[in-house]
Amino acid sequence: MTEHTPESYTEILSRLDTIHNDLVEIKPKKDINVISKPLPMKGTSVLIGFPGSGLVGTIALQYMVDQLEFEQIGIMTSKFFPPLAMMNKGVINDPVRIYIKNDIAAIVADIPIHPMICYETSRDIIDWLEQFKPKEVVTIAGIITNEPEKRVFGVATTTDALTRIEELTLILPIGSISGIASSLLTECKARGIPGYGLLGETVNAPDPRSSAATIEVLNKMYNLALDVQPLIEQALEIEQSMGKIAEEVQQSAEQSPKKDLPMYG
Amino acid sequence: MTEHTPESYTEILSRLDTIHNDLVEIKPKKDINVISKPLPMKGTSVLIGFPGSGLVGTIALQYMVDQLEFEQIGIMTSKFFPPLAMMNKGVINDPVRIYIKNDIAAIVADIPIHPMICYETSRDIIDWLEQFKPKEVVTIAGIITNEPEKRVFGVATTTDALTRIEELTLILPIGSISGIASSLLTECKARGIPGYGLLGETVNAPDPRSSAATIEVLNKMYNLALDVQPLIEQALEIEQSMGKIAEEVQQSAEQSPKKDLPMYG
Amino acid sequence: MTEHTPESYTEILSRLDTIHNDLVEIKPKKDINVISKPLPMKGTSVLIGFPGSGLVGTIALQYMVDQLEFEQIGIMTSKFFPPLAMMNKGVINDPVRIYIKNDIAAIVADIPIHPMICYETSRDIIDWLEQFKPKEVVTIAGIITNEPEKRVFGVATTTDALTRIEELTLILPIGSISGIASSLLTECKARGIPGYGLLGETVNAPDPRSSAATIEVLNKMYNLALDVQPLIEQALEIEQSMGKIAEEVQQSAEQSPKKDLPMYG
Amino acid sequence: MTEHTPESYTEILSRLDTIHNDLVEIKPKKDINVISKPLPMKGTSVLIGFPGSGLVGTIALQYMVDQLEFEQIGIMTSKFFPPLAMMNKGVINDPVRIYIKNDIAAIVADIPIHPMICYETSRDIIDWLEQFKPKEVVTIAGIITNEPEKRVFGVATTTDALTRIEELTLILPIGSISGIASSLLTECKARGIPGYGLLGETVNAPDPRSSAATIEVLNKMYNLALDVQPLIEQALEIEQSMGKIAEEVQQSAEQSPKKDLPMYG
Amino acid sequence: MTEHTPESYTEILSRLDTIHNDLVEIKPKKDINVISKPLPMKGTSVLIGFPGSGLVGTIALQYMVDQLEFEQIGIMTSKFFPPLAMMNKGVINDPVRIYIKNDIAAIVADIPIHPMICYETSRDIIDWLEQFKPKEVVTIAGIITNEPEKRVFGVATTTDALTRIEELTLILPIGSISGIASSLLTECKARGIPGYGLLGETVNAPDPRSSAATIEVLNKMYNLALDVQPLIEQALEIEQSMGKIAEEVQQSAEQSPKKDLPMYG
Repeated sequence: MTEHTPESYTEILSRLDTIHNDLVEIKPKKDINVISKPLPMKGTSVLIGFPGSGLVGTIALQYMVDQLEFEQIGIMTSKFFPPLAMMNKGVINDPVRIYIKNDIAAIVADIPIHPMICYETSRDIIDWLEQFKPKEVVTIAGIITNEPEKRVFGVATTTDALTRIEELTLILPIGSISGIASSLLTECKARGIPGYGLLGETVNAPDPRSSAATIEVLNKMYNLALDVQPLIEQALEIEQSMGKIAEEVQQSAEQSPKKDLPMYG
Repeated sequence: MTEHTPESYTEILSRLDTIHNDLVEIKPKKDINVISKPLPMKGTSVLIGFPGSGLVGTIALQYMVDQLEFEQIGIMTSKFFPPLAMMNKGVINDPVRIYIKNDIAAIVADIPIHPMICYETSRDIIDWLEQFKPKEVVTIAGIITNEPEKRVFGVATTTDALTRIEELTLILPIGSISGIASSLLTECKARGIPGYGLLGETVNAPDPRSSAATIEVLNKMYNLALDVQPLIEQALEIEQSMGKIAEEVQQSAEQSPKKDLPMYG
Repeated sequence: MTEHTPESYTEILSRLDTIHNDLVEIKPKKDINVISKPLPMKGTSVLIGFPGSGLVGTIALQYMVDQLEFEQIGIMTSKFFPPLAMMNKGVINDPVRIYIKNDIAAIVADIPIHPMICYETSRDIIDWLEQFKPKEVVTIAGIITNEPEKRVFGVATTTDALTRIEELTLILPIGSISGIASSLLTECKARGIPGYGLLGETVNAPDPRSSAATIEVLNKMYNLALDVQPLIEQALEIEQSMGKIAEEVQQSAEQSPKKDLPMYG
Repeated sequence: MTEHTPESYTEILSRLDTIHNDLVEIKPKKDINVISKPLPMKGTSVLIGFPGSGLVGTIALQYMVDQLEFEQIGIMTSKFFPPLAMMNKGVINDPVRIYIKNDIAAIVADIPIHPMICYETSRDIIDWLEQFKPKEVVTIAGIITNEPEKRVFGVATTTDALTRIEELTLILPIGSISGIASSLLTECKARGIPGYGLLGETVNAPDPRSSAATIEVLNKMYNLALDVQPLIEQALEIEQSMGKIAEEVQQSAEQSPKKDLPMYG
Repeated sequence: MTEHTPESYTEILSRLDTIHNDLVEIKPKKDINVISKPLPMKGTSVLIGFPGSGLVGTIALQYMVDQLEFEQIGIMTSKFFPPLAMMNKGVINDPVRIYIKNDIAAIVADIPIHPMICYETSRDIIDWLEQFKPKEVVTIAGIITNEPEKRVFGVATTTDALTRIEELTLILPIGSISGIASSLLTECKARGIPGYGLLGETVNAPDPRSSAATIEVLNKMYNLALDVQPLIEQALEIEQSMGKIAEEVQQSAEQSPKKDLPMYG
């Protein structure tokens, strides 16, 4: 039995260690990396805004977290995100930020998500959220109509969930939604997390007025009492500082999903 | 023997655990994820409709599961599916749904499958079905002709299978089929599962009349006694609500398979 | 020593099992899957026809296996093959079929192979063939000239091999060949398997007359005594039923290999 | 217990060894390979210049390392880098070079980084830097304005960091930056490393005058006392020798990030 | 301790075996496969010619190995190589061939290397060469000028190396080189192998005169005493037989590296 030297075991362990090290470096475990403090485990409502038509969700939620002084608790990074950073008084923003205040969390993004990675982005975000048993997910986006109005349309993941927003929005009876808003809601539905889409009527340019309309819905859903007047007054400044993102979003939109090559490996 | 401390074993186990965790996260096991109750093990007939020309299969099977009150038992998700969700009275649909009623299952999809992933989609769907030893697979699709008629053409995976539909359809003697209908039937043939293709004559727009014609064939194959008159009456509404999908399908069709880059890794 | 409980070992085994299961599902072992009875181990000659210019190889070999009543013993499938199936009296064809009769095997394909996957396709086909120690591989293809004649040009993998066909074909002294015919012969040469290319003069449309010319060479090489007159008489019907494939081949040809992006992962 | 022969252990070890060997060859561990002596562990300032608009960073830092006689201690290679090498008196340059002098390190690149690999490049560079606990990272780049001036704009990763450069540069209050400069700063911010961007006003051609302006800022930050007059005098020669790179950068710039296909595997 | 049955160990071993087998089949270890006899371990000089502008390197080295009767000792294959084979009196050429005579080895290729795989190709070739401790690597390529002359320009990997060719070539003082010649030299420089680039002035067509000029340099470097007159006399024949390759090279050249999508997985 002397052949069973401790060295042998040490060697096994050391080799396993090496295998482990090599393997984890072959490929990161997730497509989207979340670096964040945990959310509270008490049924948090999670509001999500990625830049889409009119940048409605990004503008609305950034205004909300700034005005209501949410605390930034984390970021998301990914090789799939485009290399683009917004400046705020000379300081660069994390491209995707996680905020919390009481029982409301907000995920605010400065970068558009390409149709080809909407699935992975949604899956990894909801994967991360699910462990904290969130009460609900609300995604705020824009929808282009040919009307001058700034109405807010609503969709939900289930008939039950729909009751929560049917008085506050115009329910979209038929039609389809696409992009990251669509895949976030699809992912919520697949996992049984109540999900809502608030779609502000908008155009192809930064649209603080449409954002303000969606905030009015959030005001009612969460008793935020957030004054949107300053947001509308900053319209010109916002339009200038976010013009580059709006341009990127529009270019993304011109690439319809079917024109992309699904890749596999 | 004291060197064989339990810690060593614990460490091995712990390391193996870690390797395992990392590995399973490197890549999901399947390209298509099926989240579903099992099918009954009694020779189920499986009807499949993905959006193609005229959205014939999707419209026909959705109408069937709604009218005959099939139970939804599952969904399919995939990073290869485009980010697109249909609304139904304000509630978003799962993009690919699995239904059952007695000995008939239906897989109904709202999203077109890109030529480059037809193989993986078909392989993973039939992989999942095969374990339940289905009696047969019927894929419903459209075929564009320059005729105003709404005939239904039939193809089968074997000469034996052909006898089941040769009285009910116009057998396609020569020619070729492509896309997801083709790869589903090819996969069935490769595994010895009887497979049928019902191809409704159609055009490049949502076509409830062609769908109705394929339902008439299903009526005879499965004694469904399903009245198609309401479907034809809803034609206008269907055309509006499914216009976006039809558009996507047409764009997909314009990309012929050979224009795509096969990727490998 | 009681800590060395059998559970620990069971756990190790169980974990290794799990690792194994996950790993084998990460990626199929081969790019091309061959599902077939084995070839005889007695020096089989293997004739291969993929659709290329004029569909010369596909038409010639399909005619040969039909007329001489070869037995189909297998198929090939791959995620790289385009989703396309030919119909034969209402029954769909396996896209790539393996046949045998005595000491001649034939691989007949209905689907064109994209330049980017010629290497993998050839490697995996010859990998599979090599285990049966084939006597030789003959690939039949078309070559576009500006002549009305239907001559057959010949190339071989070695000077020795060339003697077998130099009386039967016009030897191509200089120039180059491309596509799947080129990579099959390159692969044979690399492994020391005698390989021949029979290139029928053709045009960009299904060309039974060129196929007939290559059959005349096969008649001499293998004493087949196959009458090509019926093939020429079916020309119109073949042209119609194979028009779709010819179209795909032509589109593939317009994509020269250099326009493709080599991918790696 | 005799079944526990030492051979069994040896075999396990040997197999583990083999697994390890195969695994590490499947894929290199990093996308960017750094072959370099270590940096000093004393709070090194790291200056980084990749070719972008006006080649401002590359020209500035190459001039600095040449004039101040920095020592080259390493290189970076990657399959993602384009195959391009600059000549220096007949000797080819390593495309990405690492230099050190006292407490300043410089990473100087001759090759543009494609938007799709900015994330990986930044992550791997900062991964490598992080182990040496650098004091700060300064990325030097160009920014195209429609002004004839050669001002230097500044951004920083935090409000604290901003104080270090607010007297030396024009702080960019709003707007966005993109490309490798953006992803390097985003990565620094995510890891808590103070990061600065010095953006020289420039045009679409090698621009030694803009580079000189950024050097003046470095002179103040690091007391370099580097005379930029010779650089401005070499303008014509630099423009000629770096014309090819500038051309490549401009072509890269025309490809906006959203036009690229994010790939995953 | 009876629970520690030998079966358990056998099972572990067997499972490890299986893991190993599956893993090695997931992906071949190298992107470029070298099937060759070893080079002599005595400081071999390795001459490399891939088709580029004017096919200068391919024509020069093929002429050299033919005239001086080098022995072919190996080949290289890769899924990244385009499916293209040259004919030589009816016999197909291996697309990349390895030759040896005394202390000179030659790698001669008939296929252009796409910019996206220059890194992998160079890395794997130099990986293979490095084990034989070669004395030096000389890559022969073309450089397009607008001059009618057929001068030969020279570059080297170090200032020391440059002395070997500065009397024999026109040293390129500034500028850049790209493509496989650039990545081969970059790889040599990174590993400390002396490397030389001989760049013959040429045009966009097979150019035996430029090849002859580079052979004159090789004559001086290696005392080959190779008469280039026959090569110049064969100009017309070479131009015809290699026209197809030249065409492919030119198409490759029109795709500048930045237009390619770097892929990762």
